[in-house]
Amino acid sequence: MFRQPGQESNIINGKQDSSAHESVAGLIADLPLFADLEPSLHRQIEGISRLLTAAEDAVLSLQGEMPRYLHILLDGQVALTSTMADGTTAVILVVHPGEHFILPSVLAGLPYLMTARALMAVRAVAVDGVALRQLAEREPLLASALLRSMSYEFRGMVQQVRDLKLRTAAQRLGCYLLARVQDAEARKADFRLPFEKALLAAQIGCGQETLSRAFAALRRHGVETHGSRVILHDIPRLRLLAIPDGPGEFSPA
Amino acid sequence: MFRQPGQESNIINGKQDSSAHESVAGLIADLPLFADLEPSLHRQIEGISRLLTAAEDAVLSLQGEMPRYLHILLDGQVALTSTMADGTTAVILVVHPGEHFILPSVLAGLPYLMTARALMAVRAVAVDGVALRQLAEREPLLASALLRSMSYEFRGMVQQVRDLKLRTAAQRLGCYLLARVQDAEARKADFRLPFEKALLAAQIGCGQETLSRAFAALRRHGVETHGSRVILHDIPRLRLLAIPDGPGEFSPA
Repeated sequence: MFRQPGQESNIINGKQDSSAHESVAGLIADLPLFADLEPSLHRQIEGISRLLTAAEDAVLSLQGEMPRYLHILLDGQVALTSTMADGTTAVILVVHPGEHFILPSVLAGLPYLMTARALMAVRAVAVDGVALRQLAEREPLLASALLRSMSYEFRGMVQQVRDLKLRTAAQRLGCYLLARVQDAEARKADFRLPFEKALLAAQIGCGQETLSRAFAALRRHGVETHGSRVILHDIPRLRLLAIPDGPGEFSPA
Repeated sequence: MFRQPGQESNIINGKQDSSAHESVAGLIADLPLFADLEPSLHRQIEGISRLLTAAEDAVLSLQGEMPRYLHILLDGQVALTSTMADGTTAVILVVHPGEHFILPSVLAGLPYLMTARALMAVRAVAVDGVALRQLAEREPLLASALLRSMSYEFRGMVQQVRDLKLRTAAQRLGCYLLARVQDAEARKADFRLPFEKALLAAQIGCGQETLSRAFAALRRHGVETHGSRVILHDIPRLRLLAIPDGPGEFSPA
């Protein structure tokens, strides 16, 4: 077990968090993870949950520590990172509103294998991990909901492993950019990257120099960048290079 | 959805499999996945399971198809591969006896996202997927066992993503070789690779040329190879290069 220097002071827990006692009443039923459950179960989950707010850069869970909460993100973004013994760190996932972290650690009752850091001010529901596990052991419908959710997450990890093994950095970047485009019919798009390029490189799984080369390689496929602004001039052409997964083919949707 | 050419003819199902009606009585209780369950649950799982044998190269599940069985391997090895639309294929995992596949697809009721192919003659328990899901919805202890198992598997995937993002191919190969050494105190080791180098390259996530370069790089760290035979002359030195995870640090054990 190891720590990244300077992280401990930022750790969010009940005592340091000013909003610890804010009610989660009415929030639980709207969370995708719990949406299919009975109202009586929603109330039981409310009883073991609290609302949490944290500032940018706050650490919500620390690699190597025992899990206390399942966090379900309401607002903001959280990076899940993993650090090796030599101090190098990879971004494994970026969590978006409606998604949760880190369910496998909470359910296995094993130390967090990733650090969760707020990329901006965040708001989250924090569900007591031990109480959630006990509730799932009594309530098969809750257990089924958690199983289903983890199945989807697992599929996402398989996809990521396959991408890292088979796609070039330029293809992974191309897929990432294409996934930012909401309109499946669009031929052009213009948007801002949701976070800085160092984090983008870490998420795509390459160094910053490789990311710069990947952006340069994509220029020939109609990708223009100005700082964080990205313009896709020719989406069909970018698709030919990046070969994103079709909807029925691999993605969990 | 796409198929790899020539795979369909090998698919194992109840009708083609001569051992379809062989009993699994007494086997279920010994499987790690179900070991903690009550005898009455063991009998229920027996009722929805059968024993399956398959020859080398047989396909036990095919990417893109709906899951029919959870397979639990008794003997042999199975490669789980994922193929992209352009036909390139990555080995995501190699399954060993006592391990199962592909639980997330079975539980999510979504198409297999990997093809499972026998690397040698295999024997497996095949549990009916729909019946298992229904049983887990009624039996919280079974649901908990499945949740725990998937949590462990998820952790393994996180580790693999991190390795692919942070370790060089030589380090990944070094970690792979070090993991083959059973004796934690050993300074030297001598063993055979369990499968051919093309598959090893695919599992480590590099091309065969990169694998050859990785073996060449490891020679300076005391790794000698003759065909499939590997001799580690200086395990502590190899550890310094590969930086394998410590037991409490990352691995699910």
